[in-house]
Amino acid sequence: MSSDQAMWEPKYATRAARMQASEIRELLKLLDEPDIISFAGGIPDPALFPVDLIRTAYSDALGKNVGAHKLLQYSISEGDPALRRWIAGYMAARGVPCEADNILITNGSQQGLEFLGRMLLNPNDTALVMAPTYLGALQAFAASEPVYDELSLDPTNRTAASYADAARAGGGDVKFAYVVPDFSNPTGETVSLAGRRHILSLAADLDIPVIEDNPYTTLRYEGEAQPFVQALDVAVCGGIDQSRVIHLGSFSKVFTPGLRVGWVCAAKPIIRRLTLVKQASDLNASALNQAVMCRLAEQEFDAQVARACKSYRVKRDAMLEALAEHMPKGSIWSTPEGGLFVWVTLPDGFDTAALLPKVVADARVAYVPGHAFFADGSGCNTMRLSFSLPTPDVIRDGIERLGAVLKSADI
Amino acid sequence: MSSDQAMWEPKYATRAARMQASEIRELLKLLDEPDIISFAGGIPDPALFPVDLIRTAYSDALGKNVGAHKLLQYSISEGDPALRRWIAGYMAARGVPCEADNILITNGSQQGLEFLGRMLLNPNDTALVMAPTYLGALQAFAASEPVYDELSLDPTNRTAASYADAARAGGGDVKFAYVVPDFSNPTGETVSLAGRRHILSLAADLDIPVIEDNPYTTLRYEGEAQPFVQALDVAVCGGIDQSRVIHLGSFSKVFTPGLRVGWVCAAKPIIRRLTLVKQASDLNASALNQAVMCRLAEQEFDAQVARACKSYRVKRDAMLEALAEHMPKGSIWSTPEGGLFVWVTLPDGFDTAALLPKVVADARVAYVPGHAFFADGSGCNTMRLSFSLPTPDVIRDGIERLGAVLKSADI
Repeated sequence: MSSDQAMWEPKYATRAARMQASEIRELLKLLDEPDIISFAGGIPDPALFPVDLIRTAYSDALGKNVGAHKLLQYSISEGDPALRRWIAGYMAARGVPCEADNILITNGSQQGLEFLGRMLLNPNDTALVMAPTYLGALQAFAASEPVYDELSLDPTNRTAASYADAARAGGGDVKFAYVVPDFSNPTGETVSLAGRRHILSLAADLDIPVIEDNPYTTLRYEGEAQPFVQALDVAVCGGIDQSRVIHLGSFSKVFTPGLRVGWVCAAKPIIRRLTLVKQASDLNASALNQAVMCRLAEQEFDAQVARACKSYRVKRDAMLEALAEHMPKGSIWSTPEGGLFVWVTLPDGFDTAALLPKVVADARVAYVPGHAFFADGSGCNTMRLSFSLPTPDVIRDGIERLGAVLKSADI
Repeated sequence: MSSDQAMWEPKYATRAARMQASEIRELLKLLDEPDIISFAGGIPDPALFPVDLIRTAYSDALGKNVGAHKLLQYSISEGDPALRRWIAGYMAARGVPCEADNILITNGSQQGLEFLGRMLLNPNDTALVMAPTYLGALQAFAASEPVYDELSLDPTNRTAASYADAARAGGGDVKFAYVVPDFSNPTGETVSLAGRRHILSLAADLDIPVIEDNPYTTLRYEGEAQPFVQALDVAVCGGIDQSRVIHLGSFSKVFTPGLRVGWVCAAKPIIRRLTLVKQASDLNASALNQAVMCRLAEQEFDAQVARACKSYRVKRDAMLEALAEHMPKGSIWSTPEGGLFVWVTLPDGFDTAALLPKVVADARVAYVPGHAFFADGSGCNTMRLSFSLPTPDVIRDGIERLGAVLKSADI
């Protein structure tokens, strides 16, 4: 054995240089110590998982021999027809009349993001994303080596021509706009109706699709629901098969992320192409898990949404009250109408990434430094707080401890 | 609504042109009619699925509240530690001493193929594949826009330099050699020990990884097991972390494809990179499904392998006997020592793709035309027959009917 052999590694594709670890997921691994109050995760509260219902659904699905054999076999890449019909009904009830053939089942909506990046982006093409935006989307798109430009909701800020010019200067074209319209990860904010119309207008001018990533939409605790961007487009373009909006949905935040079931709703030609991507990528999602999710959705969707909203609303209120009491003077934060996140901007001079070790050590509290959510790495004085996991009392305690360390920080 | 809008479609990435439907999976959709005898699928026999065991495993996994909550939550991208330890033991017992950190869990081994293509291939890089080879691998690699060159097992046929020169002429480098060494899909053939050594020697000369895709390996009905290519390499290179072989394994053929659980076994630096790809792609495989598969493996792997081998051996024998009796003069076919497939080469002049509609209509029998498995589309007089699904009697009947139509064909 030579030392050359010991150092053997393959030559990676150039895109591999863009594949980086998620700070959040790496952070999660370090937070198993029981005395840490974690506002970092942003994962749903397991106390809300309908465990008994899920156990019964698996037992019943596997109870009939013929049906069980089918659910344990390879299955079609598009996904379970009954589940796709249920989702089509869900979308239709929200202003997007469509059929099962407009739906592709994915392993969580994360997989839909990766598929869309792969299908749409050549290296150096531009993806328009808000700043900050969902970190997992930046990671999903990264393998396709895009350039990012900031999707601004202020119509006076940037013209379609300026986006197109910037993209050409970067060696590609603008390929899509990406938005999490409801209770965004990481900010918790909701895009206004005017903002939604502006995105559609900009996309029309650029002749690009809009990727509407909407996993939190049903978790609304107050205020009026805004129409899906896809619904606004469908209302004027003539129907889902003429729409430029590609909608991603998920059962992970409402029921459980453990079955890995999400979906893409889009024009049939787009779904047909994505189905080929699914086929090449992992053949199909588990038919068994899809059947179980279909039963959960058919039986319990509205009731489960109501249960989740009731619980999360109290937690959100606890966090907002505690922030008002304990944050350093000059801090501001979002007031989310739903979802799992509050976005805090500390006064200039704070560096939330540099402070995190001290906060974990002294306050036994964890959060996600905000700069990870900016494609350009800015946002050093921001942080994402999730209220999903701790109880209201623990949230109050944690925010108080966090505030104390922040106020004592030598900035 | 203008007709322009009605025709709206996004501009796809150039790689999208390479994403094509699988003839096999499209074919499967058409074969639901109950009177068709299908030798086309190549899917495992559902009668062998241990349904009761799987139902009990789900029920038990979801029976304990704390454990259930963890299995229904997001989980680490690497996969379930207990399952990875079991797989490491499986690999060690087959000459590849390794640890859980050498294993990544994927949604079936198909996902491992797609990840490796994405991680290793720049556009116009060369992948060395046998002719014919697994169609799903060609599809998985396609998104990375490779060039294919034929991996020959005859050492006198091609030199490393000739492969490297051809790749450079095509605008890239040779990036890996891909092989299904045991009871290959589609041929059912097994690569000899000399062939395995030749692949390793060639890979060393080219300084490239070898992707060893081995989903059928435990389904051996006769003859002596050949060592894994990875075991041969590990024996000389000093250990798994110095090995250039990346091994893909699957539970789909032994237990069920329905849980979508496969794995990659490789040097830790490669696994760490693939874990980032997994994270960006779909975060993690279902923790619940992994826990269930872990229990199946721990409790029943050897017994299940024995059951499957006993059943498939009888079916294989029935097919080989019937082929000898009914195929047109001048036909030859493989004699697989395991797996699910027999590869038939008809005399020159037969076109199995052109004949398929007639065979389906007249004989009510289906197969897969062989040309789909050649990167260059050759192999027009070949077909893949799977003996996994029909009973032995139905296999004999189907081959007799197939033979009758072939013999009457006007070629």
